[in-house]
Amino acid sequence: MTEEAECILSIDAMGGDTAPQMVIDGLAISTIRHPKVRFLLHGDEARIAPLVARHPVLKSRSETRHVAEMVAMDEKPSAALRRKDVTSMWRSIASVKDGEAKAIVSAGNTGALMAMARMILKPMPGIDRPAIAALWPNPRGESVVLDVGANIGPDERQLVDFAILGEAYARVIMGLERPSVAILNIGAEEVKGNEAVKAAAADIRASGIDMNFYGFVEGDDISLGTVDVVVTDGYTGNVALKTAEGAAKLISNYLSNAIRRSLFARIGYVFASGAFKTLREKMDPRSLNGGVFLGLNGVVVKSHGGTDGLGYASAVDLAIDVAKSDIASKIQSRLNEIKSHRPLTALERMQAEQGAVAAVGP
Amino acid sequence: MTEEAECILSIDAMGGDTAPQMVIDGLAISTIRHPKVRFLLHGDEARIAPLVARHPVLKSRSETRHVAEMVAMDEKPSAALRRKDVTSMWRSIASVKDGEAKAIVSAGNTGALMAMARMILKPMPGIDRPAIAALWPNPRGESVVLDVGANIGPDERQLVDFAILGEAYARVIMGLERPSVAILNIGAEEVKGNEAVKAAAADIRASGIDMNFYGFVEGDDISLGTVDVVVTDGYTGNVALKTAEGAAKLISNYLSNAIRRSLFARIGYVFASGAFKTLREKMDPRSLNGGVFLGLNGVVVKSHGGTDGLGYASAVDLAIDVAKSDIASKIQSRLNEIKSHRPLTALERMQAEQGAVAAVGP
Repeated sequence: MTEEAECILSIDAMGGDTAPQMVIDGLAISTIRHPKVRFLLHGDEARIAPLVARHPVLKSRSETRHVAEMVAMDEKPSAALRRKDVTSMWRSIASVKDGEAKAIVSAGNTGALMAMARMILKPMPGIDRPAIAALWPNPRGESVVLDVGANIGPDERQLVDFAILGEAYARVIMGLERPSVAILNIGAEEVKGNEAVKAAAADIRASGIDMNFYGFVEGDDISLGTVDVVVTDGYTGNVALKTAEGAAKLISNYLSNAIRRSLFARIGYVFASGAFKTLREKMDPRSLNGGVFLGLNGVVVKSHGGTDGLGYASAVDLAIDVAKSDIASKIQSRLNEIKSHRPLTALERMQAEQGAVAAVGP
Repeated sequence: MTEEAECILSIDAMGGDTAPQMVIDGLAISTIRHPKVRFLLHGDEARIAPLVARHPVLKSRSETRHVAEMVAMDEKPSAALRRKDVTSMWRSIASVKDGEAKAIVSAGNTGALMAMARMILKPMPGIDRPAIAALWPNPRGESVVLDVGANIGPDERQLVDFAILGEAYARVIMGLERPSVAILNIGAEEVKGNEAVKAAAADIRASGIDMNFYGFVEGDDISLGTVDVVVTDGYTGNVALKTAEGAAKLISNYLSNAIRRSLFARIGYVFASGAFKTLREKMDPRSLNGGVFLGLNGVVVKSHGGTDGLGYASAVDLAIDVAKSDIASKIQSRLNEIKSHRPLTALERMQAEQGAVAAVGP
């Protein structure tokens, strides 16, 4: 735990459906799990202080920075951006930029969080668009799925970036040396998938990058755990994630209805209650709560807005794991590997041109 | 059952992983469920005849048309198309075109089946691209999801067509007067979804069409049964369908592992075995087997290639239900409603131009 000595997390205390209550409940759990982590809370001190006061350990290991305004859960990201540094969300991200904290956790508005994080922290050199990575349960444990909602249209270049980001994330979070990586596709048609997924797969293969690239997988492969990292565009990834959540709810509903229907089944339920508890724990979305924003100069973790303290504590666990890792260098080394094999991004071209202008400038 | 008196189904007896055995097993079940339906079997008579001989009722109500060749499950659709009418798949579709049969069922290669069906039966007037519609379980019963794999890129015009096709299908198959229809989207971003879904929703609203249009739903709404018809592009729909199947398998796996782990749980399982049986039946993909190709001049039902006789019989049920319905007129009346509100399709423009050329031609 000595490596946690210096770890300070920045917390958007006002983000989430039932913030700040749920956030403080979560941090109280986190203080037990991570005895050396400290918290920098951003938000309305009048609302935060009484909640923190109930947890002496948290009180001793946190500091509250008062900021009166907050981003609403349904606020347009562009509107939130315009308000700049008057919100708890902005300030909590700025603490990472300023080097005060190693990572920021927010359960607030996802779109606003991504927009502000991009503006404040900036994408890593060589990355056009950051992605949101989710952990997805499978029979072997879990896999990484990205993007689950940051970017809309599929784009071959972005998909290659996502493969690099997701692979690095799997290495640091799951401790894998050579995680397997695949691109999500469909198998029904002759010319499989859209142009972007085909081009991205071809690019990865042609690049000669030292990646354990599996090729394509289909939707059912995600939960089967066929690979460690599943790459897709944000639209498809978001639909897949929510569709799986819906299917899990439907099955829970079937199961509880079936058991309620007969006396024998209810007796059976009592005997098997331990097994049902295990199942519920396995299916509990709180245990894998937390989408990590990958590809930024700084660690940003988005907790589910509707979670409770236990779920929030899972997001904090994730933020600490990523903050303590060397994910940035792992991403950078892969980007360097692939760089010589592909054209410059729009941003890189601009930077190169500006560099050239600066070199010949006055 | 009198309306079944004239119903003849065309069967691609060679399509499917374990065809023709599985196909004949399925038809034997169908003869019991549908005492007046007759079957026209297309395939290798030497392999089909001994199987049919074991089922005297089926034998008396079927006729086999010998055709030596078949489309392989992994054959490229373009290659299958080039072989034209030497395959059982082609001949079975042609029987619908020729008016010999009311519908065709195949458990063969999906891509080849769609390509051949488009070539032989042609899309309905006003429909650019036919779609594959799946039935999806929800707590209220089931909903229609389309497209689940016939078309790759999303296109606003196609999405509007899919809404019309899916609504008509829900009316005839689920007996609903005004099924609710929504377009699948994601909710995370400010400017929700891609251009195609936004434009399609705007088109439906602007058209003044008499449709119970709900707007957008997200992935979890499919299994929750928020609406009766969920419209999406074939890439996203296919990923969603397979992702849900994968999630269901994962949960079954969790449940059986949890029960196996303790003696008490195994005792509980014995008491609750009725409930587990109900759950298994609810989750049995065979009970909702069959993707219907919508938007063609003729009824085509695709059974899952890996199903067994029971699953194949479900696909036959579906084909009979659709064949007996007036789905084509329901689709056509909606297309007429919307026609005046939107520009011509590429095909319609070509047809109009050809008409004009013919009118002034020699």
